[in-house]
Amino acid sequence: MKKIEGGVCAPQGFQASGVNAKIKNLKITKKDCALVYSEAPATAAGAFTTNVVKAPPVAWTEGVAIRGACRAVFINSGNANACTGSRGLSDVQAIAEKLSGELGISITEVGVLSTGVIGVPLPMDRISDGLHGCVAALSPGGNADAAHAIMTTDTVPKEYAVEVALSSGPVRLGAMAKGSGMIAPNLATMIVVMTTDARIEAEVIQQLLRECVGVSFNCICVDNDMSTSDAVVVMANGLAGNTPLLPGTADYEAFAAAFRALCVEVAQALVRDGEGATKFVEIRVNGARTDEDAKTIARSIAHSQLCKTAFFGEDANWGRIACAAGYSGVRFPQERLCISLGDLEVVHEGLPTGFDEAAASTIMKAKDIFIDVSIGDGAGSAVFWTSDLSHDYVSINADYRT
Amino acid sequence: MKKIEGGVCAPQGFQASGVNAKIKNLKITKKDCALVYSEAPATAAGAFTTNVVKAPPVAWTEGVAIRGACRAVFINSGNANACTGSRGLSDVQAIAEKLSGELGISITEVGVLSTGVIGVPLPMDRISDGLHGCVAALSPGGNADAAHAIMTTDTVPKEYAVEVALSSGPVRLGAMAKGSGMIAPNLATMIVVMTTDARIEAEVIQQLLRECVGVSFNCICVDNDMSTSDAVVVMANGLAGNTPLLPGTADYEAFAAAFRALCVEVAQALVRDGEGATKFVEIRVNGARTDEDAKTIARSIAHSQLCKTAFFGEDANWGRIACAAGYSGVRFPQERLCISLGDLEVVHEGLPTGFDEAAASTIMKAKDIFIDVSIGDGAGSAVFWTSDLSHDYVSINADYRT
Repeated sequence: MKKIEGGVCAPQGFQASGVNAKIKNLKITKKDCALVYSEAPATAAGAFTTNVVKAPPVAWTEGVAIRGACRAVFINSGNANACTGSRGLSDVQAIAEKLSGELGISITEVGVLSTGVIGVPLPMDRISDGLHGCVAALSPGGNADAAHAIMTTDTVPKEYAVEVALSSGPVRLGAMAKGSGMIAPNLATMIVVMTTDARIEAEVIQQLLRECVGVSFNCICVDNDMSTSDAVVVMANGLAGNTPLLPGTADYEAFAAAFRALCVEVAQALVRDGEGATKFVEIRVNGARTDEDAKTIARSIAHSQLCKTAFFGEDANWGRIACAAGYSGVRFPQERLCISLGDLEVVHEGLPTGFDEAAASTIMKAKDIFIDVSIGDGAGSAVFWTSDLSHDYVSINADYRT
Repeated sequence: MKKIEGGVCAPQGFQASGVNAKIKNLKITKKDCALVYSEAPATAAGAFTTNVVKAPPVAWTEGVAIRGACRAVFINSGNANACTGSRGLSDVQAIAEKLSGELGISITEVGVLSTGVIGVPLPMDRISDGLHGCVAALSPGGNADAAHAIMTTDTVPKEYAVEVALSSGPVRLGAMAKGSGMIAPNLATMIVVMTTDARIEAEVIQQLLRECVGVSFNCICVDNDMSTSDAVVVMANGLAGNTPLLPGTADYEAFAAAFRALCVEVAQALVRDGEGATKFVEIRVNGARTDEDAKTIARSIAHSQLCKTAFFGEDANWGRIACAAGYSGVRFPQERLCISLGDLEVVHEGLPTGFDEAAASTIMKAKDIFIDVSIGDGAGSAVFWTSDLSHDYVSINADYRT
């Protein structure tokens, strides 16, 4: 597996575009409509927010993913089309219908996603201009424009691609993402579009996506607020010509490893670009009875406001880490708890080690902090990524809407 | 029921004291050791942190409460005696033994609680001075000294008392508390001591305490970090001479209402004194299938960092409230969701009402904000209290330990 350029257009037969259509208001000059298109039919998979307050585009695109075929995904920023009721859903259908006509594909193969302010109907005239412009601008080099167009409070565009050698030759995977951690303007939207030219059945890639989401997008935290619009959509057009990938084969394992690595890379990028984030913190838990228990403990630490403010303060506050592990809901013997910050063990079998504060301070002052928590109760392990809770986080979110 | 003065000493036969013993360090001049003592044997109840990393004093005092008899509670601030292993537990036993001797009561009737820095053994010589001083200073008017002595980052002492008329005459209830919401220095300690001169069996008051904690201390949130030391201890010495209170009687109902009101008053005081809090927010959820579902939704809103920063920003951000309700884990039809800020309905049946922003702004600028969320799915209801997430919260917690 090697990293390559090209984002969502890196795999064969994918085109993309991004244009400005002034979706949020007439003063907007940044690109705000994006389209990713596969020249050939593509199988599809998706993972979506479980929030019961679900934006109409998510409901629509979930239906597309369930059918297992998708050739185009249109995304606008500036307006989330959320809390817009039946009008919101008919607007999504109108977008899918128009794209279906312009691209000459079935309406059931068109995904539609939106991010931005909520409770405001889409400006459908400008959306029409945007999607028409996106179709006209489609190109095999349009990936960067698309990655820019979906940004909201993101400070950097996020696109990645890898190539992996299978027995039949190389296949490629690409991805673009938006989201400042789990959160973003108003409603914390994370949108990820992944492309590949591998041949893989919809059920197979759906299962793979489910597994990979569990160790990537479900293992990150900026503020634990789950959006009404979170979505990951995958398209696989098969143009690499490999034998369809099936679990249990070496080719599948190679592809799955690349797919998982791409998901983890994108997930980590979302945390690094978290709103107000000054730290990237990796929390590794081992020795739990099960992997699920380990994840619960890691999540509890990652979500703790007290831990996150301590990270911001560069304070080696092992007590808060022990405390958050303790209230996670997982029962474990506290007299076996060990905690290390980087290479420095700060708690050994439930008691502070009397560590060197200067050494701890050096570790906490780094941009990337690694925390190991050992429970001594089994073989379960998990990794979680989180950011710190800073003054900028409060500032960004205290006055977003007004 | 009427409010009265006297805190934990308001009920007959209770004495208290608070002295300075320089527990945290030799520069401390504030009172930091407190004692509450009942002149007569008292039944007891308790509610304690469920954190598996539990401080030795909590483990000890939980044992006292389980036995159902307690005549004295000693509390020090400045050192939590947490993460101190077997030494921590033997220190607690030594304190209980010494108090038992000085007060002439059984060691099993002595509760011991600690709050402050963690991972540091108690300075037992100064603790000895403190508890000796507390015993010498015991008086029926010592309640204010005791309430001061248990403060850490609290900005105000918290003590309350009420009198309620039973058929046999008045009984009194008193309380003192420390804690800035669920949190406080290092480890978010909430300590509450309640006293009453009512006659009530240990099992009955234990059950009543459990019910009342469920609608008071378990319904508040400053930052969702559960301490290793949270504890509520109740002593009932029976000196009011009433017939023992039994559920199903009018006297019991009157007492229970007063007990519940006292718990709610103390819980709200903890939120109002939350670290960095500028707002007090009451979240009322109704129309859920069950009370438990309603509580889950209310808790989800109360814990949302995005909602809490919006409260700080005085932003009528109904979208974040709808979103937090949506991801609570409770399934409900989003098209029935209604949200009001004060008297102003901002979401009606899933859609924004197009409310007057100026009116909403006036409501959000108040110190106390009331939010009603209606799910339209049943008769379950709940109330939760929370504070906002401010710059001061980040400042206070980013550099506590160092």
